[in-house]
Amino acid sequence: MKLPGQGDFESSGAHENAHSEEPDSGLGPGPGLNGPSGIDIGESQVSKDPLLFIQLNELLGWPQALEWRETGRWLLFEEKLDMGAGRWSAPHVPTLELPSLQKLRSLLAEGIVLLDCQAQSLLELVEQVVSGESLSPELRGQLQALLLQRPQHHIQTMGIRPCRESNAFRMASRDEDAPLKHQNPLRQKLPAGAEAAAVLAGELGFLKQPLGAFVRLRNPIVLEPLTEVILPSRFFCLLLGPPTLGRSYHEMGRAAAVLLSDPQFQWSVRRASHLRDLLAALDAFLQEVTALPPGRWDRTARIPPPKYLPSQHKRFPWKLQEVTSLSRQSAALAEDKHHHGPHTPIPELQRTGSVSQLCSTFTWPQSQTPSLLGVFWEMPLKVPRDYSLDYLPFRLWIGIWVATFCLALVATEASLLVRYFTRFTEEGFCALISLIFIYDAMGKMLNLIRAYPIQRPGSSAHGCFCQYPGTGGNTSEWTSAKLKDTEDILSVPGLVNASFLPPSECIRQGGHPRGPSCHTVPDIAFFSLLLFFTSFLCAIALKHIKNSRFFPSVVRKVLGDFSSVLAILLGCGLDAFLGLATPKLLVPTEFKPTLSGRGWLVSPFGANPWWLSVAAALPALLLSILIFMDQQITAVILNRAEYRLQKGAGFHLDLFCVAVLMLFTSALGLPWYVSATVISLAHIDSLRRESKACIPGEAPNFLGIREQRLTGLVVFVLTGVSIFLAPVLKFIPMPVLYGIFLYMGVAALSSIQFMKRVQLLLMPRKHQPDMLLLRHVPLSRVHLFTAIQLACLGLLWVIKSTPAAIVFPLMLLGLVAIRKALEWVFSPQELLWLDELMPEEEETIPENRSEPELLFSGNDSEDSELMYQPKAPEINISVN
Amino acid sequence: MKLPGQGDFESSGAHENAHSEEPDSGLGPGPGLNGPSGIDIGESQVSKDPLLFIQLNELLGWPQALEWRETGRWLLFEEKLDMGAGRWSAPHVPTLELPSLQKLRSLLAEGIVLLDCQAQSLLELVEQVVSGESLSPELRGQLQALLLQRPQHHIQTMGIRPCRESNAFRMASRDEDAPLKHQNPLRQKLPAGAEAAAVLAGELGFLKQPLGAFVRLRNPIVLEPLTEVILPSRFFCLLLGPPTLGRSYHEMGRAAAVLLSDPQFQWSVRRASHLRDLLAALDAFLQEVTALPPGRWDRTARIPPPKYLPSQHKRFPWKLQEVTSLSRQSAALAEDKHHHGPHTPIPELQRTGSVSQLCSTFTWPQSQTPSLLGVFWEMPLKVPRDYSLDYLPFRLWIGIWVATFCLALVATEASLLVRYFTRFTEEGFCALISLIFIYDAMGKMLNLIRAYPIQRPGSSAHGCFCQYPGTGGNTSEWTSAKLKDTEDILSVPGLVNASFLPPSECIRQGGHPRGPSCHTVPDIAFFSLLLFFTSFLCAIALKHIKNSRFFPSVVRKVLGDFSSVLAILLGCGLDAFLGLATPKLLVPTEFKPTLSGRGWLVSPFGANPWWLSVAAALPALLLSILIFMDQQITAVILNRAEYRLQKGAGFHLDLFCVAVLMLFTSALGLPWYVSATVISLAHIDSLRRESKACIPGEAPNFLGIREQRLTGLVVFVLTGVSIFLAPVLKFIPMPVLYGIFLYMGVAALSSIQFMKRVQLLLMPRKHQPDMLLLRHVPLSRVHLFTAIQLACLGLLWVIKSTPAAIVFPLMLLGLVAIRKALEWVFSPQELLWLDELMPEEEETIPENRSEPELLFSGNDSEDSELMYQPKAPEINISVN
Repeated sequence: MKLPGQGDFESSGAHENAHSEEPDSGLGPGPGLNGPSGIDIGESQVSKDPLLFIQLNELLGWPQALEWRETGRWLLFEEKLDMGAGRWSAPHVPTLELPSLQKLRSLLAEGIVLLDCQAQSLLELVEQVVSGESLSPELRGQLQALLLQRPQHHIQTMGIRPCRESNAFRMASRDEDAPLKHQNPLRQKLPAGAEAAAVLAGELGFLKQPLGAFVRLRNPIVLEPLTEVILPSRFFCLLLGPPTLGRSYHEMGRAAAVLLSDPQFQWSVRRASHLRDLLAALDAFLQEVTALPPGRWDRTARIPPPKYLPSQHKRFPWKLQEVTSLSRQSAALAEDKHHHGPHTPIPELQRTGSVSQLCSTFTWPQSQTPSLLGVFWEMPLKVPRDYSLDYLPFRLWIGIWVATFCLALVATEASLLVRYFTRFTEEGFCALISLIFIYDAMGKMLNLIRAYPIQRPGSSAHGCFCQYPGTGGNTSEWTSAKLKDTEDILSVPGLVNASFLPPSECIRQGGHPRGPSCHTVPDIAFFSLLLFFTSFLCAIALKHIKNSRFFPSVVRKVLGDFSSVLAILLGCGLDAFLGLATPKLLVPTEFKPTLSGRGWLVSPFGANPWWLSVAAALPALLLSILIFMDQQITAVILNRAEYRLQKGAGFHLDLFCVAVLMLFTSALGLPWYVSATVISLAHIDSLRRESKACIPGEAPNFLGIREQRLTGLVVFVLTGVSIFLAPVLKFIPMPVLYGIFLYMGVAALSSIQFMKRVQLLLMPRKHQPDMLLLRHVPLSRVHLFTAIQLACLGLLWVIKSTPAAIVFPLMLLGLVAIRKALEWVFSPQELLWLDELMPEEEETIPENRSEPELLFSGNDSEDSELMYQPKAPEINISVN
Repeated sequence: MKLPGQGDFESSGAHENAHSEEPDSGLGPGPGLNGPSGIDIGESQVSKDPLLFIQLNELLGWPQALEWRETGRWLLFEEKLDMGAGRWSAPHVPTLELPSLQKLRSLLAEGIVLLDCQAQSLLELVEQVVSGESLSPELRGQLQALLLQRPQHHIQTMGIRPCRESNAFRMASRDEDAPLKHQNPLRQKLPAGAEAAAVLAGELGFLKQPLGAFVRLRNPIVLEPLTEVILPSRFFCLLLGPPTLGRSYHEMGRAAAVLLSDPQFQWSVRRASHLRDLLAALDAFLQEVTALPPGRWDRTARIPPPKYLPSQHKRFPWKLQEVTSLSRQSAALAEDKHHHGPHTPIPELQRTGSVSQLCSTFTWPQSQTPSLLGVFWEMPLKVPRDYSLDYLPFRLWIGIWVATFCLALVATEASLLVRYFTRFTEEGFCALISLIFIYDAMGKMLNLIRAYPIQRPGSSAHGCFCQYPGTGGNTSEWTSAKLKDTEDILSVPGLVNASFLPPSECIRQGGHPRGPSCHTVPDIAFFSLLLFFTSFLCAIALKHIKNSRFFPSVVRKVLGDFSSVLAILLGCGLDAFLGLATPKLLVPTEFKPTLSGRGWLVSPFGANPWWLSVAAALPALLLSILIFMDQQITAVILNRAEYRLQKGAGFHLDLFCVAVLMLFTSALGLPWYVSATVISLAHIDSLRRESKACIPGEAPNFLGIREQRLTGLVVFVLTGVSIFLAPVLKFIPMPVLYGIFLYMGVAALSSIQFMKRVQLLLMPRKHQPDMLLLRHVPLSRVHLFTAIQLACLGLLWVIKSTPAAIVFPLMLLGLVAIRKALEWVFSPQELLWLDELMPEEEETIPENRSEPELLFSGNDSEDSELMYQPKAPEINISVN
């Protein structure tokens, strides 16, 4: 059944940007919840009703100079005109005075309500409204003229410099429509098909009694000068009355606007067929209002928009069956993990994401980046070196075995095991990678300092001079060559064949540097430390700029995205400015195998006995586990529901590619393939697609990943080309790179929830943040879980550092077993909050599901609402 | 007239800590607003009613295992028991569901209301309540037994380690009263005379109809097991009913508790004589409720307590006449400034404040601290040096003249001029001092680097060896002495009389260091830079720890208060660890005049012509202005209303002391007196007295300054003693001190509002913070004001740096004139927000006061509420 005034909404020609989605199918069972992943991500998907822009025009200046002025506007949140400052406030959660809502209700109950108005213009509309009032003809004319008066809008143009703003304010308000349409930046933020609503409120001295009118237009029309944004208006609300104490009409106007901005009220009032429907909708709104007590809340405070809009699932009860609880979601998700979704290649090249981030993805020379595999691939290979076996042939055999094992894993669909990789495993893995970054950076820096010792005042290592071989012709030759620098030549008797030339210059001229300090280079150690800290701190500071209040968003984005690149450039610049001989990144200038005398292909046996090719299977087995873990955990993180990528086939296909690459690189003696969790995540992060034209106050929506193959290809081609970039790369001082690695490790470490829980250990209970976790799990249990994670991490680190390192891959796999064992220590409810559920646990939970109160430990059913919020990607070891 | 149930409140013996203030004088004209300074700082001063602790006990476990459990408690804010986690939530602003308030109202309207209950125990009370219900005798007994059941309390003991918390939870709940009384940390936070209220709510299956009761006890009694804290209870509220959908009784119980925690409702209900008064109070509460729309607000979010509680002046209309508007306050304040308050010496030694802060106040050797006077006192003295006059006698004459001028200023009450020192002047002064700190630190650091040049690889300054005078006995002597270090002796033919000893050692052994690098010390420059940045960043980081969430408050306080000291210690430790020859703080080891050959007293003429003693009057005039400004601005800042010190006499007395000290120091040739704004403010900051036992959620109240003379005396005695601390001070490297000065400058600069406005220049309009200022003044005007301040600062800096520096003091005074001229550019309303008003302006404002709307630019009367908030000290150039 269609309500009057709604049938031919879609055919309305007043707005060009007609709804591109399927037309609203009338009332039906209510708007469907058809978000891409079944998760409610805001009301635009809850209701297919067009977005409503609501504007409050207030009548000011009574009795001298009556004029309408726009004093507030609403989309999702309220923006208020700060008249003194002449600016729109930041979007904030509207707060209402309760009496104004009640007054509004009684005014509407007595006033004119037109729910199917056929007016085609503002004039017609005003005539219809005014004719309904019991006024004298004279007053009626006055009122009509007043309503047709052009209101003052405050158009805040963007991009102009702030200083010119007050002029813009004065000028723009009287502008014509045409320029307005192009100028108003708000218009561009509104989605196609948006409608407007105008609320007019004020005090009018010649009125004897309050005058209220609510109009729903059958066909939305552009009420020309009434609204700031040129949009077809659907609703019109008029609230006038004799002057009263207080600002009651202002507040009533705000109440009407807030009501209209409420999705449920809007939904009801669009379908209302009678005044009583309108009042029922208002009463329903009142029932759901949250009340803040007067003495404890500062009314003038403006509440910033919440990070997530509350989901509407409770308010639209007919949709409840579609909304699943978190555990049901996670169960479905776990199934998705091993469901091989159809492989859907996207042929056309989509817009690639943040170019700057892609660039910085490329920045990392892979061979320099620490990684789990990179750090550990040496381990199973210690044996041949220790026993002076032929290295490369042995390595080739390991590669062959690893490829075989990996292919076997692919064939047996071993990737199904990723179901058991919960956050516990992922966090352990991420923390380990981050710690390796940090440890590596610090360790290399310490080595560097050892290589350039500091000269202490007490140490006798002071002095160096240049001695020439004999008293022959060389001396005179040199004397003539350097005669201009007479200071350099020693005037000590018997020392004609010595000078104070620096060692390098001395050798070049055929002399021998002599003395204890000839091989020490001063200042390098401290300067390297300075460079190290400078690049580290600079990268952190630039990263923080992205979320700071300063600078336009473009600048912030560039500075934030390029933070590492800029930090490196700064370091290089500092180094070049001072011109000290800091150790630099050394890239061979020639493209050839490093080992002289070998060809490109590795011979399969070399000098090794034949049985070594069989014995290679054992280290290969361990290495396979490592590669499998590295590859699969990266894939699990990339396939998290938050990214909206469900590429089940990728788990197998990628492992297959790794197997083939292992063969290829082993045969050529190239470095083995690094799954490169950090690079993969940086890449995916740079391809995020977020909604651009955000409604004021709304956080950008994550729309998905731009899936294409171009950027990956380009990044790796460029990485390959970097072989030939030696002339450029040799200007990068190593301490700068170490500083960036430190930054990457620290940034990655601080992004995981595990670290937040570690921080809790240091916080007094009183100052702990209001984490949802802490509302539901006793602190001692949280600490116990964190302690177990810390112990696992410590154990892994110890194993990695001792001769037992060879079993390290097995221990990494042991994380899964430990997580499984935790089920005996923690209840499923606790694990649900601290981790995720493993497949078996999820089967045990549904038995309790008939009593949801029990599931969420206690009667805190209110808290469970937050579980419906879309989760942000939690593990983020990408650092760009 | 006294209401029943209130008369003999004071004689109630149930609580020992009786009200120490004057007894409440019944109804009267309502509680008076008699705060110490007439400023409303919270409700404890609005109403003399005792503080109410409200506890909600909920009936859980129906039907199997009924038990009462405390699930919420209220003082100012709500604390909720997170049952899953077994912990009290952080205090937060309570949010109510509107229907629950309405349900509560109807339940109370039908239920039992006893407003003058004479019960002497819980049993009596329960009997009275139950007898009022129309229940069968059996049910009545059941109900009575249920009500007498001991509820489960969740006592959260403090100070125990978090891990043991869950045990404490299980054990403490069944504890006896006596240990409870001592254990419960909440009890210690409650002021003397606090009362309790118990709200009991729940669903009871055997009830056929809802059961509501509200009891006000005539004499508050300790309802033994009912409340967590052993306090006499004044109110008792029972809300029971048959099981319903939803958690309506829980919400009604919360609503009742929130109502009772509202100061106005509480005030009314304490004085209510009939049910209708109770309902009227509830309706009044409803009228003032702030409503948050359902779709835009996440109900599960917990709103942290606002920084300031909203003032109650609007809610208690009978007090309006006592509350003055801000401008009236500031007018009064300006009058206070030149009102010589009675000098009230406080004989007894009060507890001194934060010892750690006092210590760090002492830490700064005054001669090393940059200051306005310190930097500029050299200026008028350039002349004698340039013309080779006798310095000290000329300086003596300047001192004599300055003392004369200062005495004249004291005699003429010139301190009255401070009325014209508004925030504009103060900020200019503070910014200048901060910039001098920063400039000085950087400049000295640069000089240090120049003194220890970096050895670049290309530079030929490489090499140094030690040459011995001749081939005589010295050589053999030396050879035998150093024979053990055979490496040191050169094996170069013909070089037996040379070695690679370091230059200092060489000289000590009678040799001559030869070579270009003998006078360069490597590594010092970069190490100094490292020390500089380390101490700077360490001081900043430690300072931030004070406001972080980590560590217990004692640790945070110590780390934050001692931030500079710890940073210095860290720097010294680093320096000592590496043992490099960094430049150290040099303190003479002997106590004598620096200039050899002069006595302690300066002779009045020396070699100068007689007229120079007259000519000294000109530089002395300028210096007097400088000293006057320095002294008076410091005094103005110390006398700000926020500190609650009104020492009008101090303005004159201090200047008098300065005059006397000028004479004294000039005669002895000592450094002139430095008013030391930074030290004075650090001192006053360390003597802040704040309320200790804060009610949960309440910010500590600033109670005043601990006024005494001991700490000042000790600080300066210790400063004097530091003359003899040379053996300790010589371990402090200069770069560390420079780093601390940089930190002091940066910290001081960032504490003034001026800098916040400078930051606004860099922020896009959209991201600007919600400053009150920006709600009322157009951004262009704010920027203009900031630009003018920047220009003044730049001008002052330029003058300071050029030969025109001699007129600098005049220009500083010129700030006041510029501020006066700004009245032509800015409206009084704008200046009220951007600055303060000067005396004349304030006289023009009251004409408008009949229309307060106009004063606050626009109809934003809601915003004006914030003007009644106590202001925090804004200018804070103390850095400890």
